[in-house]
Amino acid sequence: ADGGALYKARACQACHGDDAKTTVLPIYPKLAGQNAPYLLEQMKAIRDGTRTNGLSAAMRPLMASVPDEEFQSIAEWLATLK
Amino acid sequence: ADGGALYKARACQACHGDDAKTTVLPIYPKLAGQNAPYLLEQMKAIRDGTRTNGLSAAMRPLMASVPDEEFQSIAEWLATLK
Repeated sequence: ADGGALYKARACQACHGDDAKTTVLPIYPKLAGQNAPYLLEQMKAIRDGTRTNGLSAAMRPLMASVPDEEFQSIAEWLATLK
Repeated sequence: ADGGALYKARACQACHGDDAKTTVLPIYPKLAGQNAPYLLEQMKAIRDGTRTNGLSAAMRPLMASVPDEEFQSIAEWLATLK
């Protein structure tokens, strides 16, 4: 699946920015170029409620039904960005 | 305080790398160029135990006695890195 299309379909850009680094607020992390395995672990943890600190809890509703394979595609796409 | 010196004094490079982006394992996040407010919130959350997912729990002993001001200096230094 196309990670970039999924990134938009899941509205990630609403907070993390179209380029995944011009974040809407500086309290949100830049994701572009981040390690894919780390990103995958964080998306799963936020979906599963094992990470709820700060504003990550606000993401949980967006993540509720997202399967691991989609997170994998999004994580791999983000890791390729500069 | 010099964030770069504190980064080394607190052994952050042991996992996150001297350049804060060549991480020892891809499951660790790159920190170089990340938003300072986000980094500050994560270091405080890991120290205070409101973020314990994945390997962040392993960092907690390293963070136990670190004052917010030190985290602030480290976060600001990391944000300047490419």
